[in-house]
Amino acid sequence: MTDNPRWIVERTPVGALTADDFRFEIGHTVPCEDGDVRCKVLMLSIDAANRAWLQGRTYRAQILPGRTMAGFGLGEVVESNSPDLKVGDIVSGDLGWQEYATVPARWLERLSPRGQLSHELSLYGITGITAYVGLLKIGEAKAGQTVVVSAAAGATGSLVGQIARIIGARVVGVCGSEAKGQWLIDKLGYDAAVSHRDPEFGAALKTACPDGIDVYFDNVGGPVLEHVLRRMNLYGRVVCCGVVSQYDTTDPAPGPAGVPGLLVTKRIRMEGFIGPDHHEQNAEAFDALESWVANGDLVVTEDTAEGIEALPEALMRLLNGKNIGKQLVHLADSSGT
Amino acid sequence: MTDNPRWIVERTPVGALTADDFRFEIGHTVPCEDGDVRCKVLMLSIDAANRAWLQGRTYRAQILPGRTMAGFGLGEVVESNSPDLKVGDIVSGDLGWQEYATVPARWLERLSPRGQLSHELSLYGITGITAYVGLLKIGEAKAGQTVVVSAAAGATGSLVGQIARIIGARVVGVCGSEAKGQWLIDKLGYDAAVSHRDPEFGAALKTACPDGIDVYFDNVGGPVLEHVLRRMNLYGRVVCCGVVSQYDTTDPAPGPAGVPGLLVTKRIRMEGFIGPDHHEQNAEAFDALESWVANGDLVVTEDTAEGIEALPEALMRLLNGKNIGKQLVHLADSSGT
Repeated sequence: MTDNPRWIVERTPVGALTADDFRFEIGHTVPCEDGDVRCKVLMLSIDAANRAWLQGRTYRAQILPGRTMAGFGLGEVVESNSPDLKVGDIVSGDLGWQEYATVPARWLERLSPRGQLSHELSLYGITGITAYVGLLKIGEAKAGQTVVVSAAAGATGSLVGQIARIIGARVVGVCGSEAKGQWLIDKLGYDAAVSHRDPEFGAALKTACPDGIDVYFDNVGGPVLEHVLRRMNLYGRVVCCGVVSQYDTTDPAPGPAGVPGLLVTKRIRMEGFIGPDHHEQNAEAFDALESWVANGDLVVTEDTAEGIEALPEALMRLLNGKNIGKQLVHLADSSGT
Repeated sequence: MTDNPRWIVERTPVGALTADDFRFEIGHTVPCEDGDVRCKVLMLSIDAANRAWLQGRTYRAQILPGRTMAGFGLGEVVESNSPDLKVGDIVSGDLGWQEYATVPARWLERLSPRGQLSHELSLYGITGITAYVGLLKIGEAKAGQTVVVSAAAGATGSLVGQIARIIGARVVGVCGSEAKGQWLIDKLGYDAAVSHRDPEFGAALKTACPDGIDVYFDNVGGPVLEHVLRRMNLYGRVVCCGVVSQYDTTDPAPGPAGVPGLLVTKRIRMEGFIGPDHHEQNAEAFDALESWVANGDLVVTEDTAEGIEALPEALMRLLNGKNIGKQLVHLADSSGT
């Protein structure tokens, strides 16, 4: 039994997440049973969905007070009681906010990193499959069409917009500040950007989308979705990936006016999805992403905090829109680096 | 020039539709120009969408005050200046609320009625293609799944529920009264029915759908949609066909809570459509409907008012949920009958 520093959910958040919703403790590792492996946690992915997990049932059970906070990340196997993984293997999975995760080997995926290790979280893995499948398969975005993406400077959004640009679509990003918008245009090659804090958001969106909107990759829901629906073209697609505007609250807003009326008159398809459902397309997606990075078309942006103590703050930062690109927390280096 | 009794839109309705929103006048027929035909209007289809047309732009331009009220119906050609149609042909199209329609032949479709003439409005035509394509192609309903349909005793709904029963799905109808619900169960073979006026609607819906809901054919929007979304199964489909709950008002309600949050967590697809977009599937759909009527599996229910003077009242009846089955207004018999 070794010390295992970790973050425990102290209580179910009421309203916006605060540091007091978590408690840090020096726990202990549990025995590594038959079929289990023990991993050193190297790096954790911080995602808006983490906040939703705390509030209630989503696509997984609620994480109740007293439990170690869940989190997807990368680990290195340091002890193995499974024939499927050996010491030194690099794995991904729900490792949780702790220094060591002792879990059944079947919960983990062994990785053969395509480049720097962090890219397994920021480019490949769930972020990459979500952006690729959502935009191209669910959204059916095509060259010459107008694609709008919200949370456009976030991990998924910043990939979605760049993929849309690469396939020849017009790309408009919705983000939380003019500075982020300028970054989207200058660094990622977006055609236009609109701040959702602009009091004239509806008019700004209209100006940015002179030919209407064919595909909306929605990470936020709420009023932005309502505005976008008004500007959608006939047979448009709304790819429902997340609802950031509603996660950090216990009092969800009503749905967008225009649902379902505008869906009928414009024959719009709205479709919810989660990346992990589409892992059979991982190879196609990751091959494409790798080639775009190699030829310089795709830029990967990471926003990395250091140390296990940084975890709650990193999630609050993300929920407040302070990050640019993929929010990560680095806990340890692999023994191979 | 002959007398042409007709209904003119007197004003854009404010709130619920009233008789004063229309004006009856004895107009005159216009010249039948090159390419035109003159039709005697035999029968008009009364649809909830008629109300929406008066309020603003939908999938067609608003019908402004001073214009003859639009309406889809059946006519008999009594004069032709087109090589495509001859006197005596039975046609369908937007003939309007008048005794004679003089329109370009290309706006009309020549019919070869499959049975009694009224079935071209109540079973074939837009009603039938809407029910068939919506349920089976957009909704992808399958045997063993649970299908919920709203406005279940209406023209489209009563076909949707019966088709779902025929393919082996569990069918639950949402309608406006217990009497209608009993009729759905007794006469159309629905498994269960729930009144949207039931103060415990959510609980009643849950009881009626013990295995959740796989397909929701939505004719109404509003609170019913919100309740249904909570009961949808993973990968469920919401077929958005109409928004009856919002047509007869100038003050639309907010959208359903749960959009887009529940769409993401349950990977739900919501898709709007209109029947006429899918006319390439008319033959398949109408052949199937005809065979089901022939073997007694499918019952066609019509609610027919008599005479041109009955038109505004027939639309108000429909909007108030007083009709059962397809609401029609009969104006004249064809010379062949």
